[in-house]
Amino acid sequence: MEGRSYHMTPEEFRRHGHALIDWLADLSQRIDTLPVVAPVEPGEIAGRLPDHAPAEPEEFAALLRDLDDIVLPGITHWQHPGWFAYFPANASGPSILAELAAAGLGVQGMLWSTSPACTEIEATVVDWLVDLLGLPEHFMMATGPGGGSIQVSASDATHLVHVVARHRATEAGAGTDDLVAYCSQQAHSSVERGARIAGYRHIRTLETDERYALRPDALATAVGADRAAGLVPAIVTSCVGTTGTAAVDPVAAVSALASEHGLWHHVDAAYAGSAMVCPEHRHHQAGVETVDSYTFNPHKWLFTNFDCNVLWWADRRPLNAALSSVPPYLRNAASDSGEVVDYRDWQVPLGRRFRSLKLWWVLRSYGVEGLRHHIAEHVRLAHWLADRVAEHPRLELSAPPSFALTCFHHVAGDTATDDLATAINAVPSVYVTPSSIGGRRYIRVSVGQTWTSEDHVRALWAIIDAAA
Amino acid sequence: MEGRSYHMTPEEFRRHGHALIDWLADLSQRIDTLPVVAPVEPGEIAGRLPDHAPAEPEEFAALLRDLDDIVLPGITHWQHPGWFAYFPANASGPSILAELAAAGLGVQGMLWSTSPACTEIEATVVDWLVDLLGLPEHFMMATGPGGGSIQVSASDATHLVHVVARHRATEAGAGTDDLVAYCSQQAHSSVERGARIAGYRHIRTLETDERYALRPDALATAVGADRAAGLVPAIVTSCVGTTGTAAVDPVAAVSALASEHGLWHHVDAAYAGSAMVCPEHRHHQAGVETVDSYTFNPHKWLFTNFDCNVLWWADRRPLNAALSSVPPYLRNAASDSGEVVDYRDWQVPLGRRFRSLKLWWVLRSYGVEGLRHHIAEHVRLAHWLADRVAEHPRLELSAPPSFALTCFHHVAGDTATDDLATAINAVPSVYVTPSSIGGRRYIRVSVGQTWTSEDHVRALWAIIDAAA
Repeated sequence: MEGRSYHMTPEEFRRHGHALIDWLADLSQRIDTLPVVAPVEPGEIAGRLPDHAPAEPEEFAALLRDLDDIVLPGITHWQHPGWFAYFPANASGPSILAELAAAGLGVQGMLWSTSPACTEIEATVVDWLVDLLGLPEHFMMATGPGGGSIQVSASDATHLVHVVARHRATEAGAGTDDLVAYCSQQAHSSVERGARIAGYRHIRTLETDERYALRPDALATAVGADRAAGLVPAIVTSCVGTTGTAAVDPVAAVSALASEHGLWHHVDAAYAGSAMVCPEHRHHQAGVETVDSYTFNPHKWLFTNFDCNVLWWADRRPLNAALSSVPPYLRNAASDSGEVVDYRDWQVPLGRRFRSLKLWWVLRSYGVEGLRHHIAEHVRLAHWLADRVAEHPRLELSAPPSFALTCFHHVAGDTATDDLATAINAVPSVYVTPSSIGGRRYIRVSVGQTWTSEDHVRALWAIIDAAA
Repeated sequence: MEGRSYHMTPEEFRRHGHALIDWLADLSQRIDTLPVVAPVEPGEIAGRLPDHAPAEPEEFAALLRDLDDIVLPGITHWQHPGWFAYFPANASGPSILAELAAAGLGVQGMLWSTSPACTEIEATVVDWLVDLLGLPEHFMMATGPGGGSIQVSASDATHLVHVVARHRATEAGAGTDDLVAYCSQQAHSSVERGARIAGYRHIRTLETDERYALRPDALATAVGADRAAGLVPAIVTSCVGTTGTAAVDPVAAVSALASEHGLWHHVDAAYAGSAMVCPEHRHHQAGVETVDSYTFNPHKWLFTNFDCNVLWWADRRPLNAALSSVPPYLRNAASDSGEVVDYRDWQVPLGRRFRSLKLWWVLRSYGVEGLRHHIAEHVRLAHWLADRVAEHPRLELSAPPSFALTCFHHVAGDTATDDLATAINAVPSVYVTPSSIGGRRYIRVSVGQTWTSEDHVRALWAIIDAAA
């Protein structure tokens, strides 16, 4: 046995890699002929798999064959141009190839010293994004007291911010069980969930206004009541682009209250942050100069495949105070010199992939011009669809179109709306999300998949119109 | 502008993909000629990057060229056969290609319905691993009350377990600030850090025995003292394979104490879990039948590139109780039916990549036979090295070799040991980790990189011998 190798050799990797690249390119060329939603029943995919790992090695050809035979039937295609569900998780050629390059290089960037390129390219592109999104200069690692890094998801980012705010409050003497976190009822579920995971026992989800945005007066009232009850208000999250309707909380007004009451102010722009590459959208985040942290997901709407979230801090010291620890096996001369950043102190995990490579490749492949073009086009198409809905006698907008999200319902009520959603989603080439808001059922259409063009949105409208 | 596209077309993707596969195959063939550690100074890589994202698109050829010109000089090669530092983060052809396939498919598996194959292949291969690692059958999703899922890292897993244990304790009436978490002084820093992030204000890092393993009597004493002080002991973590010396905590004895005192018992086998594919190592986890949770990292030593951690629960209900939330936009018929598992309730993030694809491909490509062969070979080589150290007049083992980790120091003391480490790491073809344990400096040599063979370990020994 000794000396025997079961490893795929470099030459085998080359051959199998070419085959897989071809498989993916072919898939991409025919994806619009596949149903968006996997037409399988629970247990169907698992039922095709054996009960145990194989004792003997299998050929790569068998794996590739099972991509077609087992995997594809169970795939709901987020990369289908008819994907209008949830928010997008769009991708692009340069991003997919960068993921391959990162996996092939196989570095782990927990410390600067464990791969300097992983840390320095990340610090650089995250600084580029400060500029690209019109964020305040003090978010920049290179020049300010703040800085940003890549996290797995907005849920992770928001959870982490709640941990740091909790740490700041308890270091100042508060009891953990007395802390209060605030957001609107329209904040993404990850805000309440992140606060809960971070140990907050009191979470206030506040009433919104008629546009589903956080009401500063509701926040002020809640903070006052909690203080009077002996609790310790600790953190508020504003959403720029809620999940329900892409509503925008008033960042500046919330900042003023946060400052008055000593609250941490976090901005969740998971979805809409990508739109800020277009200067015409930046008024939606007015007030961002005074927030404590800000997060968005390039993996939603910036052609960078999941996972890739960016989280910035106006001041990185409370973060590092909450997370830093230096066991002897991680000490090294570069870290001790203080000249480098070790991103392990910026996140819950210790290890980290070389995810900045895909951001770097996407930003370079599209250029600012290309990103602005495609984001603007998605917004235009969503508003075009909203105009069609507004003109339709049996449909009504559930909220003004916002960014590239259009929300509507049937005027005949919830049952008609749900029937409409069912009819739309019965067409294999499109997928939308039915949901509820303000006591009413409605349909969310989010335009943002990479390959979605005007033709696809027109086709969707024909389906909606016919079914309505 | 309208209709213009900046996207990489499928045909461009095919062409560039082939070029990148070739680049990676070529790199793999010459990686042993590169220095393991990136020979760059802080700021050197960042200094080669522009201050802003480019306004105009760049060609893919420029990205590929910069892999050579900018990235490679800043890479510390975790995939170099001379990598003996930290623990490995090894990879393999099938794993890298599965990462490409997952990125290309671009699905997001937060719910069963958002890609059934993503969930069902994960549930299946994680059940396969229960069998493969000799874990108790009640860890299996298919048959038991428990189940497992893929997490980012052992840090995430251990943090999450502390959150669930905290939730269980506070639901039972304890105050968050009264909870206590326990582990040994030799537990990985992520245990203490995970507990801290989860909100524990009292964390006891216990004295170890002469083999650097947790002492049950020290645990019993600490729990008694904390109870007497009015605190609430909540969770203890046992390590099977500590970072310092791959020491093994007595799982069965800790389980007995955990059961007696109502503590959650978590096992961190981040590194050594992979060794359990070889039945001869399973005695090290005797007692695992009664633990509450268990985690290991296929991304360390099972040829599956980072990130890929697996975390099992003996009973998944406390987990789901702590994490579940159902906003209207995530409701769907499959979830409501109760027939499917939605893995978003098993982790801090909402979104998730199709990481089970790489585990599936690795298990099938190697077969159980191939995994056992290579793990056993790494263990054999580490023990061969330990035998050389033991015979050497100026070297001494710092601990018995354990799994594939060999630890030693110079008999002339700390300065001589540090000088030896510096001399070893001055050779570009190898990389080891100097650290401290038991008040003494020592050198860790971890054998586990995919391409490390007997020749590489012999070459390392020649370097050590010459420098000692």
